[in-house]
Amino acid sequence: MKVAVDAMGGDYAPDEIVLGALQAAKEYKDAGIEIVLVGDQAQITQALDRHGNWKAANITVHHASEVIDMHDSPGAAVRKKKDASVVVATGLVKQGLCDVVISAGSTGAAVAAALFGLGRIKGIERPAIATPIPNLTGTTVLLDSGANVDSKPKQLVQNAIMGAIYAEYVLNTPRPRVGLLNIGEEESKGNEQALSTFPLLQQLSTVNFIGNVEGRDIPKGTVDVVVCDGFVGNIVLKFGEGLAGAILQLVKEAVKNSGFWAKMASMLILPALKGLKKKLDYAEHGGAPLLGVNGGFIICHGSSRAKAIKNAIRVAKEFTEQEVVAHIRENIAKEEVVTNE
Amino acid sequence: MKVAVDAMGGDYAPDEIVLGALQAAKEYKDAGIEIVLVGDQAQITQALDRHGNWKAANITVHHASEVIDMHDSPGAAVRKKKDASVVVATGLVKQGLCDVVISAGSTGAAVAAALFGLGRIKGIERPAIATPIPNLTGTTVLLDSGANVDSKPKQLVQNAIMGAIYAEYVLNTPRPRVGLLNIGEEESKGNEQALSTFPLLQQLSTVNFIGNVEGRDIPKGTVDVVVCDGFVGNIVLKFGEGLAGAILQLVKEAVKNSGFWAKMASMLILPALKGLKKKLDYAEHGGAPLLGVNGGFIICHGSSRAKAIKNAIRVAKEFTEQEVVAHIRENIAKEEVVTNE
Repeated sequence: MKVAVDAMGGDYAPDEIVLGALQAAKEYKDAGIEIVLVGDQAQITQALDRHGNWKAANITVHHASEVIDMHDSPGAAVRKKKDASVVVATGLVKQGLCDVVISAGSTGAAVAAALFGLGRIKGIERPAIATPIPNLTGTTVLLDSGANVDSKPKQLVQNAIMGAIYAEYVLNTPRPRVGLLNIGEEESKGNEQALSTFPLLQQLSTVNFIGNVEGRDIPKGTVDVVVCDGFVGNIVLKFGEGLAGAILQLVKEAVKNSGFWAKMASMLILPALKGLKKKLDYAEHGGAPLLGVNGGFIICHGSSRAKAIKNAIRVAKEFTEQEVVAHIRENIAKEEVVTNE
Repeated sequence: MKVAVDAMGGDYAPDEIVLGALQAAKEYKDAGIEIVLVGDQAQITQALDRHGNWKAANITVHHASEVIDMHDSPGAAVRKKKDASVVVATGLVKQGLCDVVISAGSTGAAVAAALFGLGRIKGIERPAIATPIPNLTGTTVLLDSGANVDSKPKQLVQNAIMGAIYAEYVLNTPRPRVGLLNIGEEESKGNEQALSTFPLLQQLSTVNFIGNVEGRDIPKGTVDVVVCDGFVGNIVLKFGEGLAGAILQLVKEAVKNSGFWAKMASMLILPALKGLKKKLDYAEHGGAPLLGVNGGFIICHGSSRAKAIKNAIRVAKEFTEQEVVAHIRENIAKEEVVTNE
């Protein structure tokens, strides 16, 4: 299996991206993973050299002369910068030379590159970003987390179908519970979008729709797949990220500002707190797939470091092996509520 | 000052409501607060008697024979149950017999009772619930947190004006920073609602509009007033509530599951963790005002216990003394973007 990694995208590119690729090449050596680092050849080679002898690893470099940065307008940049790393990486999948793309660059550019380069799966109106969120008992997938705003009910229904597949095949959740994110459990609750989406979700045959869920159900872990508009999803995710960080900071300060013995005591529980941080760490979860395009595309957080990239490569491997794209194609075709015009 | 307390609303009514009122009567004795407990006279008197001699406290009981519960349809219930505790309490303010209402009952019923009983301030299209959220440095007010969905841009602008007044006069934040909750900082980001609201917010003269803010800005404390639709606001709040609870549970478990010495150690930092819980505790913040109606109306969490009610009475006092309603009336009249049709 070949993974095309956009080596130039992300706050710590190319160095941390390259390091993550090296770690993955080492860790998943026996899994038959080949990694293609896409971007400026000189910079990538330098970064590889800094991390020791990499010639034995299953890593190659594919040159791309341009980079799309956060200031570029995503759509325009993808059309104009034909030799941008994320565009070239996506092209490798399009041409069948690679199986899946990974990028920690601009999310907008990643979505645009995937749409232009791979195209949408038949029946899918808008691809969605599916973000795994750790909860008390496992993981909840939330989609869409920012690819689209003002989604139509039918598009939310497609999110439900795609999210259920991802939860089942990649996160190993049998018969995942799919909920519509809303402000109350009753069918009569919500905005126009939610009210119109609810009865459509009830008609699905491939999805275990459990009804409306509320914000608190996500951390509780009482739902496996949460369907929402990308406007709501993105706000919720960034709020959660900020809140988790703030609470951990408060815990540390509370411990620090307590007396001498408590300070001594805190040394003993530091390992426990670190374990907690790991549980909440997005890096552990390895990126969010863009679902609904004709090929694998894993979007990583802009602040991804090596570990996050390594884990994203693991996710990319599972995504490909589990044939997520084929399953989406199959289930979308099965659901009349989606295929009917 | 007279506070009308809906003694029958909330998961722990009437006992915890009555206890909270007694605590407030004691604690704010010298502040000239009189409390009128509204609801079933026999039940309230029994609850009062359980907590000792209350005759000296500035507490009276106003009988109301009906209760609106969570299963009632709010609008219909408020019209039909004319002797419901929340309706009667609101009537006391309408008649000028009390200054402000407090209710921990159904939020929908509270909003309906306030709308029917007190009416909207001139120029206000939709009253909004303003919820204070603790952050790393203080408090951020989020509105609307669930009174309305599918809000029009003009309604969000009114939220900005009202929220700024609340932050300035009740939370003592001079020149509060007001942000529009969105999925990116750039003016070009967002859904149709946000895109149309942004330029209107820029035209305000009474509001310090700092532009778009993201979910993570709320816990960081880089914004004092966050403006959003009640659909988004309600989801964010419930998610935050659930996440904070889940993280604290994980912290406790992490500590518990570590070794013997760590367990000993954790005894020493328990007070620090309790301090943290207090910081995050909604009960400390004492309810959320419904802004935009002709009178004071503080909505409490359904699971409010005595402490939350006591703090809500303190908030009700500040709300009244600071003449929040008059300030809203004044600033709404000043802003042409709101008064123009």
